[in-house]
Amino acid sequence: MPLTFFTPGPAQLYPTFEQHLQTFVSGQLGSISHRSQQYRDLHKFTVDQLRILLNVPDTHQIMFLGSASEAWERILFSCVELESFHLVNGSFSKKFCEYSSALNKYAHKFEKPMGEGFTADEIEVPEYAELICVTHNETSSGVQMPVSEIHKLKQKNPDKFIAVDIVSSAPYPDLDYNLIDTAFFSVQKAFGLPAGLGVWIVSEKCLEKAKQIKNQYSIGAHNDLPTLWKNALNNETPATPNVMAIYLLGKIAEDFNKIGVGNIRKATEEKAALIYDFIEKTAGFSSFVKEPQNRSQTVVVANVEAPAADIIKKIKEKGMVIGSGYGEFKGSQLRIANFPATSYDAVEKLVYELRNA
Amino acid sequence: MPLTFFTPGPAQLYPTFEQHLQTFVSGQLGSISHRSQQYRDLHKFTVDQLRILLNVPDTHQIMFLGSASEAWERILFSCVELESFHLVNGSFSKKFCEYSSALNKYAHKFEKPMGEGFTADEIEVPEYAELICVTHNETSSGVQMPVSEIHKLKQKNPDKFIAVDIVSSAPYPDLDYNLIDTAFFSVQKAFGLPAGLGVWIVSEKCLEKAKQIKNQYSIGAHNDLPTLWKNALNNETPATPNVMAIYLLGKIAEDFNKIGVGNIRKATEEKAALIYDFIEKTAGFSSFVKEPQNRSQTVVVANVEAPAADIIKKIKEKGMVIGSGYGEFKGSQLRIANFPATSYDAVEKLVYELRNA
Repeated sequence: MPLTFFTPGPAQLYPTFEQHLQTFVSGQLGSISHRSQQYRDLHKFTVDQLRILLNVPDTHQIMFLGSASEAWERILFSCVELESFHLVNGSFSKKFCEYSSALNKYAHKFEKPMGEGFTADEIEVPEYAELICVTHNETSSGVQMPVSEIHKLKQKNPDKFIAVDIVSSAPYPDLDYNLIDTAFFSVQKAFGLPAGLGVWIVSEKCLEKAKQIKNQYSIGAHNDLPTLWKNALNNETPATPNVMAIYLLGKIAEDFNKIGVGNIRKATEEKAALIYDFIEKTAGFSSFVKEPQNRSQTVVVANVEAPAADIIKKIKEKGMVIGSGYGEFKGSQLRIANFPATSYDAVEKLVYELRNA
Repeated sequence: MPLTFFTPGPAQLYPTFEQHLQTFVSGQLGSISHRSQQYRDLHKFTVDQLRILLNVPDTHQIMFLGSASEAWERILFSCVELESFHLVNGSFSKKFCEYSSALNKYAHKFEKPMGEGFTADEIEVPEYAELICVTHNETSSGVQMPVSEIHKLKQKNPDKFIAVDIVSSAPYPDLDYNLIDTAFFSVQKAFGLPAGLGVWIVSEKCLEKAKQIKNQYSIGAHNDLPTLWKNALNNETPATPNVMAIYLLGKIAEDFNKIGVGNIRKATEEKAALIYDFIEKTAGFSSFVKEPQNRSQTVVVANVEAPAADIIKKIKEKGMVIGSGYGEFKGSQLRIANFPATSYDAVEKLVYELRNA
């Protein structure tokens, strides 16, 4: 019996994945040259579908990397000459911060314990920080920063660049790219694809900054922003890309567009409400994130009284896979992904089985 | 009618690709956690198969990146504090050299025109160069540096690190990893897989050097060698990897091992001989690479008198795809890949049709 994955990524594959994969294989698209018109058309299709889905204006390019983690490095190389600033409240926002130090930048941070969120009002950006690094959805803790707070943070600091990690939430957050300079995600979360591709959305202003930094410092060699950008204008990539993942992403984004991103967001909220309602009302379960406005709609983290491993095992016997807590919370928390690949009915079934676990 | 691709990568997919892909899909391996024992077993299987195939000793780790181009950057970060040295005779060896400059290293080079090769005797490595960068097989020009010359070069310079680009030749070159510090390849060439994965073979000595450089300079943040290595010891990767490609690579490497790498190398040489023999003996065709010992066994480059585009078009009508020349040679050369995915019979058919084109 096939399992249904409610894991936070790699996650359940989107229902149309196999069909698109079959089209890729039968069209021999794995063998086409990445310098051919056939490839450029495929590349453009994916970029166009993502542009529609995420409402990305022409001031921003949409580019492909090996992973979202690679985007951390490329953003820091491109937008930070000396100092960055990070909102840290979990393992992934912390890694973004550590990447900055590893590149010998000075990384300022405002840190909160796992499970707590940020509001724009409480954030003081250090004077010399060039870039504000925000994690929209902390996959490790299930904390989400409301998009309105992210926008407000940029409006309070119009002269700083802002980078938003939407790895485990895109296409859920309705970011205004007139405010957001750069954002990035990977495909093995809400897009329901196998891992191996990062997507980097980046503005002309970042490009200009990268060119300026390059006069004095290295901005990296592989997938450096000016080279990536130049290739993107021609619907190509500097190195041979993951053509299969780019193709599949385009087809899934097209499927999402047919449904409408508004409907996908609404469905996400309805399914999240079902899970949170269960957690809040059921003995032995509680929400790790206390403030409702900070509760992730795409990765729900629950404290559990019974050993997490026991619950995970029982649920697996029912044909469903849920994630354990991250790091020190492995034994006492569950992480339940709520991505478009799992239907309302599937979530209802999960909640039913959790109640009886 | 399906086409047979003799293109230098992306190339013809290996005949067992679809079967392995089906196993991946039906096993739901696209959804498994990259921190699970199931993933670690999959990862270890691929590393073990590659270790057998390429005869890689335990002093070296086999690790996964987004592409072979990424390996250029990671090698330079890890093995070069200040100065590198490059043998340049085509577009890809040139890019390796340019990556060094982009990382603000001093890149020495010994450059020859496209189509010409190097011997160990003629190479003087600059005194302060820390790393010798060799391209075993120049995909752009069809020049191969004999493995014996690469080994001799290292033996002449035992105190320098040596990095060998085997992107479009592995598993053909029988490198001695007691001499070679690091090598790398991508999977869309001779392994007959879709693009999107780079493989990096790297020695403990490189790791030590990277740790030493890190005391003073940045060695990068994403996939930096010490972090990659630490994860590899646990059969994991720092970021979510391309699980599908890693799985497929392991299965193809297993298929190769069943045939035996010696037989694969022999078959490669027999097929290459067929192509070179045709080129040498047929009016209107000649080998771009004049010295027989420098002629690539995996990417054959032919000068043609008729417009290359016309020949490519006629061959496509017969169900086969061959590559055009690289860059300025686009109109006057053909590039014919000779990878394990195309059989002796297929090469015979290609030669037959080229004769009548």
